Amino acid sequence: MEKQQILELLQQVRDGALTPEEAVLQMKIQPFQDLGYAMVDHHRRLRQGAQEVIYGAGKTPQQIDGILTAMESRDATDIIVTRMSDEAAEYIAQRHTMDFEPLSRLGIVKPTGRITAPGYIAVVSGGTSDMAVCEEAARTAAAMGNRVERVYDVGVAGLHRLLAKLDVLMQARVVIAVAGMEGALASVVGGLVDCPVIAVPTSVGYGANFGGLSALLSMLNSCASGVSVVNIDNGFGAGYLASIINHMGGGNE
Amino acid sequence: MEKQQILELLQQVRDGALTPEEAVLQMKIQPFQDLGYAMVDHHRRLRQGAQEVIYGAGKTPQQIDGILTAMESRDATDIIVTRMSDEAAEYIAQRHTMDFEPLSRLGIVKPTGRITAPGYIAVVSGGTSDMAVCEEAARTAAAMGNRVERVYDVGVAGLHRLLAKLDVLMQARVVIAVAGMEGALASVVGGLVDCPVIAVPTSVGYGANFGGLSALLSMLNSCASGVSVVNIDNGFGAGYLASIINHMGGGNE
Amino acid sequence: MEKQQILELLQQVRDGALTPEEAVLQMKIQPFQDLGYAMVDHHRRLRQGAQEVIYGAGKTPQQIDGILTAMESRDATDIIVTRMSDEAAEYIAQRHTMDFEPLSRLGIVKPTGRITAPGYIAVVSGGTSDMAVCEEAARTAAAMGNRVERVYDVGVAGLHRLLAKLDVLMQARVVIAVAGMEGALASVVGGLVDCPVIAVPTSVGYGANFGGLSALLSMLNSCASGVSVVNIDNGFGAGYLASIINHMGGGNE
Amino acid sequence: MEKQQILELLQQVRDGALTPEEAVLQMKIQPFQDLGYAMVDHHRRLRQGAQEVIYGAGKTPQQIDGILTAMESRDATDIIVTRMSDEAAEYIAQRHTMDFEPLSRLGIVKPTGRITAPGYIAVVSGGTSDMAVCEEAARTAAAMGNRVERVYDVGVAGLHRLLAKLDVLMQARVVIAVAGMEGALASVVGGLVDCPVIAVPTSVGYGANFGGLSALLSMLNSCASGVSVVNIDNGFGAGYLASIINHMGGGNE
Amino acid sequence: MEKQQILELLQQVRDGALTPEEAVLQMKIQPFQDLGYAMVDHHRRLRQGAQEVIYGAGKTPQQIDGILTAMESRDATDIIVTRMSDEAAEYIAQRHTMDFEPLSRLGIVKPTGRITAPGYIAVVSGGTSDMAVCEEAARTAAAMGNRVERVYDVGVAGLHRLLAKLDVLMQARVVIAVAGMEGALASVVGGLVDCPVIAVPTSVGYGANFGGLSALLSMLNSCASGVSVVNIDNGFGAGYLASIINHMGGGNE
Amino acid sequence: MEKQQILELLQQVRDGALTPEEAVLQMKIQPFQDLGYAMVDHHRRLRQGAQEVIYGAGKTPQQIDGILTAMESRDATDIIVTRMSDEAAEYIAQRHTMDFEPLSRLGIVKPTGRITAPGYIAVVSGGTSDMAVCEEAARTAAAMGNRVERVYDVGVAGLHRLLAKLDVLMQARVVIAVAGMEGALASVVGGLVDCPVIAVPTSVGYGANFGGLSALLSMLNSCASGVSVVNIDNGFGAGYLASIINHMGGGNE
Amino acid sequence: MEKQQILELLQQVRDGALTPEEAVLQMKIQPFQDLGYAMVDHHRRLRQGAQEVIYGAGKTPQQIDGILTAMESRDATDIIVTRMSDEAAEYIAQRHTMDFEPLSRLGIVKPTGRITAPGYIAVVSGGTSDMAVCEEAARTAAAMGNRVERVYDVGVAGLHRLLAKLDVLMQARVVIAVAGMEGALASVVGGLVDCPVIAVPTSVGYGANFGGLSALLSMLNSCASGVSVVNIDNGFGAGYLASIINHMGGGNE
Amino acid sequence: MEKQQILELLQQVRDGALTPEEAVLQMKIQPFQDLGYAMVDHHRRLRQGAQEVIYGAGKTPQQIDGILTAMESRDATDIIVTRMSDEAAEYIAQRHTMDFEPLSRLGIVKPTGRITAPGYIAVVSGGTSDMAVCEEAARTAAAMGNRVERVYDVGVAGLHRLLAKLDVLMQARVVIAVAGMEGALASVVGGLVDCPVIAVPTSVGYGANFGGLSALLSMLNSCASGVSVVNIDNGFGAGYLASIINHMGGGNE
Repeated sequence: MEKQQILELLQQVRDGALTPEEAVLQMKIQPFQDLGYAMVDHHRRLRQGAQEVIYGAGKTPQQIDGILTAMESRDATDIIVTRMSDEAAEYIAQRHTMDFEPLSRLGIVKPTGRITAPGYIAVVSGGTSDMAVCEEAARTAAAMGNRVERVYDVGVAGLHRLLAKLDVLMQARVVIAVAGMEGALASVVGGLVDCPVIAVPTSVGYGANFGGLSALLSMLNSCASGVSVVNIDNGFGAGYLASIINHMGGGNE
Repeated sequence: MEKQQILELLQQVRDGALTPEEAVLQMKIQPFQDLGYAMVDHHRRLRQGAQEVIYGAGKTPQQIDGILTAMESRDATDIIVTRMSDEAAEYIAQRHTMDFEPLSRLGIVKPTGRITAPGYIAVVSGGTSDMAVCEEAARTAAAMGNRVERVYDVGVAGLHRLLAKLDVLMQARVVIAVAGMEGALASVVGGLVDCPVIAVPTSVGYGANFGGLSALLSMLNSCASGVSVVNIDNGFGAGYLASIINHMGGGNE
Repeated sequence: MEKQQILELLQQVRDGALTPEEAVLQMKIQPFQDLGYAMVDHHRRLRQGAQEVIYGAGKTPQQIDGILTAMESRDATDIIVTRMSDEAAEYIAQRHTMDFEPLSRLGIVKPTGRITAPGYIAVVSGGTSDMAVCEEAARTAAAMGNRVERVYDVGVAGLHRLLAKLDVLMQARVVIAVAGMEGALASVVGGLVDCPVIAVPTSVGYGANFGGLSALLSMLNSCASGVSVVNIDNGFGAGYLASIINHMGGGNE
Repeated sequence: MEKQQILELLQQVRDGALTPEEAVLQMKIQPFQDLGYAMVDHHRRLRQGAQEVIYGAGKTPQQIDGILTAMESRDATDIIVTRMSDEAAEYIAQRHTMDFEPLSRLGIVKPTGRITAPGYIAVVSGGTSDMAVCEEAARTAAAMGNRVERVYDVGVAGLHRLLAKLDVLMQARVVIAVAGMEGALASVVGGLVDCPVIAVPTSVGYGANFGGLSALLSMLNSCASGVSVVNIDNGFGAGYLASIINHMGGGNE
Repeated sequence: MEKQQILELLQQVRDGALTPEEAVLQMKIQPFQDLGYAMVDHHRRLRQGAQEVIYGAGKTPQQIDGILTAMESRDATDIIVTRMSDEAAEYIAQRHTMDFEPLSRLGIVKPTGRITAPGYIAVVSGGTSDMAVCEEAARTAAAMGNRVERVYDVGVAGLHRLLAKLDVLMQARVVIAVAGMEGALASVVGGLVDCPVIAVPTSVGYGANFGGLSALLSMLNSCASGVSVVNIDNGFGAGYLASIINHMGGGNE
Repeated sequence: MEKQQILELLQQVRDGALTPEEAVLQMKIQPFQDLGYAMVDHHRRLRQGAQEVIYGAGKTPQQIDGILTAMESRDATDIIVTRMSDEAAEYIAQRHTMDFEPLSRLGIVKPTGRITAPGYIAVVSGGTSDMAVCEEAARTAAAMGNRVERVYDVGVAGLHRLLAKLDVLMQARVVIAVAGMEGALASVVGGLVDCPVIAVPTSVGYGANFGGLSALLSMLNSCASGVSVVNIDNGFGAGYLASIINHMGGGNE
Repeated sequence: MEKQQILELLQQVRDGALTPEEAVLQMKIQPFQDLGYAMVDHHRRLRQGAQEVIYGAGKTPQQIDGILTAMESRDATDIIVTRMSDEAAEYIAQRHTMDFEPLSRLGIVKPTGRITAPGYIAVVSGGTSDMAVCEEAARTAAAMGNRVERVYDVGVAGLHRLLAKLDVLMQARVVIAVAGMEGALASVVGGLVDCPVIAVPTSVGYGANFGGLSALLSMLNSCASGVSVVNIDNGFGAGYLASIINHMGGGNE
Repeated sequence: MEKQQILELLQQVRDGALTPEEAVLQMKIQPFQDLGYAMVDHHRRLRQGAQEVIYGAGKTPQQIDGILTAMESRDATDIIVTRMSDEAAEYIAQRHTMDFEPLSRLGIVKPTGRITAPGYIAVVSGGTSDMAVCEEAARTAAAMGNRVERVYDVGVAGLHRLLAKLDVLMQARVVIAVAGMEGALASVVGGLVDCPVIAVPTSVGYGANFGGLSALLSMLNSCASGVSVVNIDNGFGAGYLASIINHMGGGNE
């Protein structure tokens, strides 16, 4: 609970505008709306600089629709819905304006295409099979108002491919490095650029890949500074964090 | 290799200022100095916005001294030396101006105390036993020109302690969350602030802690957005990354 | 074997009411009934304060029917059947009075709705996707004679949601904290209440969640006192244990 | 923060007894005392029914002394200090009245020997090598006002030993089952008694024991109902939880 | 290669009955028959006391048929075929005399029902869901000439069930203990009997069972002597080994 | 509890020779002697065919002495004491007749050298560094009345060494295969002999050996039939089990 | 980037044949062709002695077709396509000359059957279920110009089978040892031959095989010298490496 | 056993030069010499192209001396002794001509400095802390007759360091890539050269490095072809294998 909000409430109590009981009630009910199956947090953009995101996995199309309707009723735009099933995507597309991309399964409801941050975010990947995670990251960042440059299929086993794209990487304000298998891409990129690198291990691979564990450990142990890691296959989380960083020190936050 | 440097070299070749053979040579030897036991990278501050750091672990006092001497000869200041042994700390302290702190075992050679970034970095920890890692993070960030606020011993099992420090957290530009055991601190802090949160799992604990694995997995699985993770006990890496982010969009980068 | 029962048997032998051979036989066959595919334990309520539960997984509808029939023939009520398949649920519903809930797949045969314990058990969850495990816990507790309060979707990344429900938590006699991903909910709740907290890790999540391992380790390493852990997704076990604790020191045990 | 406390503060503000600013301040600073190296939580007994415990590991003797002095100044008794080093034990013993036991390394400062709960807690162990963990559990429970019965060296490979102690187990209100190696004790005991069983895996053993992992997994997978698990070697946690349960529904809580 | 066979070959060479080249040839080709897709080992019964077994998994019905035909052409009986698919079972049943049991998926071709060993082997299990593995063990042992006693659903959480069957267990010459989840059955049985106990962990269970790892570790760490372990779900291996032991010191080996 | 003993007790009760209370008492106290720190099980040889063994690890010299004295007072011989410290070995040697071997740290008190089983047990090892575990196995078997043949340093990377000892292996009644690193020895030996093979993984090795895990998994996955596995480094367990098997069907059991 | 190529470029710049800007461009775009979904590396045969391979997994039939067309347009032959789906194999077979084998799912487009290396590569396997991985290795090696000898179903549990093929193994220039389960084959073969042994663990097996981990660890811990390991199921990688080694010191490299 | 040797023996038997019994004897005792504590394999150089190596770990100085004396008596030179203790190194140095290097703890007894292979082996490492493993590899290769080029401290986080040494790498016949932490070096080097790359993960690092597991998994998952892996820290194994490969197709094998 923010100090400022508490202070205002207390001042209202002192001025007789609120009874103490009402103030307690307000402290509790204000920030979110209880739909029964979910609590929609309308104050999140205030508190965290980005509105609530809808995790589509494990929600029925009807539940997603309900949350969207509640958010749209408060004029939300660029609402991100992740990991939608085919059924959910179809259901929502009939009821809302949505830009849906099937590989990443990420929809953007009421998209505006607005750019609010300076510079751009580069999304780099080692192989074509990581593309679903890449697009989840790239589309999340775009929906949050960032320009995005995609640099795909530049794995470290063919360094010349990566070096040919060096200027794109070196001018980015944040780099998202997506890689499965051995995850070396994060270290190599981390050694080449001077901006934050967000590493996303993917579960793509086979054998001793162990569902992304290999890439995850590799990235955590990166000897390059400036690299941090998000969960396996968590393209959304990387795009979200990259957007927060890209909005720092400029832009229409 | 940076495009600009290659272009300049090629222009010198075209103008006859360099032979092709000399250009090739220069492309190779320029960026670093080979001490035999280590290659000192004098161009790193240019390339990466921060000069090379000396990992003290596994280096003899004499080797550290040699690298420091090479760096100081090029007017480097605020040189970070991590994980120094008692013997190394003593040896270096006799030969260089060093601010050494024994808990984190981190020395800053030729410290200037200069602040070059706007805002501050908050270092939050769950318990007193994580303090060595916290200090490694805090001192790294300070040596790189950041103001640092320390918020220690505010574990999630006593939420009121954490909430009492909420204003310090909410005004930070970057938060470093250091926690062992269950690592829940990163999620709770991540849900309260709107800036990037860098989570550092520590190996502190016992039982099913498994050398920090428990906190690491917990942090990677954080349901809060805006959180990324560095290696177990890697206070240095967290401080370094926080500094890069804090310097974005302002300050004397 | 209980001392008291042995003593009585021995006294019957001494008094000539039983031959030694009959006593040995009785010691063996008495407590359970062998259906061939299962041994139904009719004395369990005596010995353990709660009658035997039927684990539906891996049993045919006919086997479940057989066990139920055997139990009902001895006037059992509120018989819990866990993890029923659709086929089993349908088969049993046609032959017995059953309250079946499809999300948790838990049926209560011959439900009475009787409340036998003082106070109530709170079931808290971090997200909507944990609801199946929550309901398994809640319905188990209810079938065993407890009042249950559900507090869902109050994950630690949105602390204000949890704090708004604080009074419900603080007046509970036992809290069951259900969470996947990072499992921090158990620690935060454990620090807020003064009653026993039973933590249930769930396998919900992705990436480095590793089928619930992440939440499990997090909960085991909880820095809050008063927290213990049951197996991943074991809602039934949590509800059962909570009921035993809630019946202590009061109620119609 | 408790609803009741907030209400009272708000009423004081309404009545003019407090300014809003003072109320905010009070909400923050009240519950704990900041010693620099630790925040002592004097309200914990109010909030959680048991006062704060001092984890001795990783604290200097001087720090422990400081916390103890702060607590004693508010008339605390039966203060538990866990995992004390020899040096700390000696230092504290010279300055405070302490009952210290070297195997468990657990000290009780200002011990009163008061019994405040009905019934007793049984601590059962499989072998003599688990005794340190057993004593940590037993002494914690005793310091919190419980009678404790010790049933040691009754591993499941010699069932008759365990069965001989059955009456002690069956009359306990809570059982703490401590076992290393295969951890089967928890399941067997769980099947015999009708009270809550708290299982404590220990790191005692060798080979595929993997530092207690074997016993931990075994206990989590217990097929007996009514069993929950705490962290490896966490005798303190088991004793603490057992005390909370034993105080339910009776005693001088 | 056995010394005796080499000696005989050498004597034949010395006596001129074989040329050296023929002897080398014979040493190579004698013991097995190469079907292209498999090498059938006709001498195995001589060398190892039991004829070759056909692992059905990963073999086509035609391949199994081919191996069976080759073996039957040399008068083999009681040929064990493990893990047969439905398709394979049907195909073979049409072409050979086979006793097939669908739960364990184990077929016995040309079954004789002969008993060649003294005493009997007891197969004990903790729950009904382990029955497929139990039957694989029991039927393997039976096909190799052993009497088998089945003692199912006697898990350690209901000790009285197990104790009621104690006489069956104590008179066995070998006990096979099959259990999933916590695997405690092996330790308890191991402490009750004086014959070898072969423990078979099963992958049955959920949560922190990890595909049988929990039971495996538990059984390896058994504190009872006389217990050894085979691979997870390896009922065949347990039955085979039990048969070898049961044939020792008696019977028509 | 054995059926026969219960029957006899019941008959004594019927005949008035015992009161029921006395019978219950006798059922409990008879089989073991409580020394305070340990329960000595004097009936184990009756129940399990081998007397109790003293695990030296974690016991003081005085405790070992106490147990030995209790056992010797009942005329026990060939008492095995495992994993003795230097201090314990010296202390016991001064008070009892003991054959102690320092590599395996296994002592035999009141050794008789008696051979009670037919045939011999072969102990095979892959390298010289496994010798401590080998000797623990060999000496345990010897103390229990078996002849033992040692076949050391015959790792599978030099097959000719192993084949040269083939006749020793093929005439054994039980083979104990001890190996660290890749543990292949068990499979190779298992394919050569027709008797039971007990595999003992050792923690000897480095790198991806992970404290014996590599050898353990390798042995569990052995494609040879007739192989079972005991815990890592558990030479005692292997020797004990081998003795039980070797005594089957012959000898002076 | 190769020194020689850079030198030539620089000389062209000096001679005025290229502007510096053109040279930079050429350094970047030369080695590969960007198809949008993939970057085809036409210089790989120059740089690495073998042309690029097409990993079929995760690529659409149309993408594979596009890459093949690009490569064939530059006269590539013997192009390897791994892990093709049925759909892809059919699609490509209609448009290109392809030798496809369904077990290994590996196609060779424009096959020439050319042999360019001296000697042969032996592919050895422990069981028939490893055959898919074996064929991937064997066909890769064949497509790269090597003679291949297949030695299948010679697992270490039947040593005589393996020894009968000893001459084939001992005359190979490289041996690829493919094995699942316990992976002992690599050690045994490694001890018999004097050429490099490439070990391929397979995921074939069950129980504590853990998806190939058991064989992987076993092979890494091999006590035989001259053995190295590739990823689980990576037949292609083994065949590729074997070809490189077989081409050394002879042949038409 | 080699076919040729058997043939010769059989011919001697046929010719009456040997009795069959003598032939059997000779087949057994010939290849090695039994010192009691070790079997010295004098034929290994014949069979495997390199003489036996002495693993110093776990051997007493006297045992090493004994083996060396046996080998030297048959004119062995360049005998490699690995992982010697200080005590062993000193003891051996007094009795044999030895070139000992303390970092790698590897001694070469009777060193000749002979070069027998064409080309050279490059040993590449990511950091100075891997140097012990590097030197074990480099010195092993040198003792086996190879020229060795060392390229140290060229980790992938500073690509320009690595690229500057590209010509050394590209002209090597075999590259040994040694790296701890994230192990990316193997992939990057594997993508640059066309010769076999032997990857050696090291246990150097901290945090989620898990004793080398991170580097091991990373290297196994390398997306570069031509890379294989040896055990963690196994510099000797890498040097040995590299020597075998380097001797192929040329040199004085």
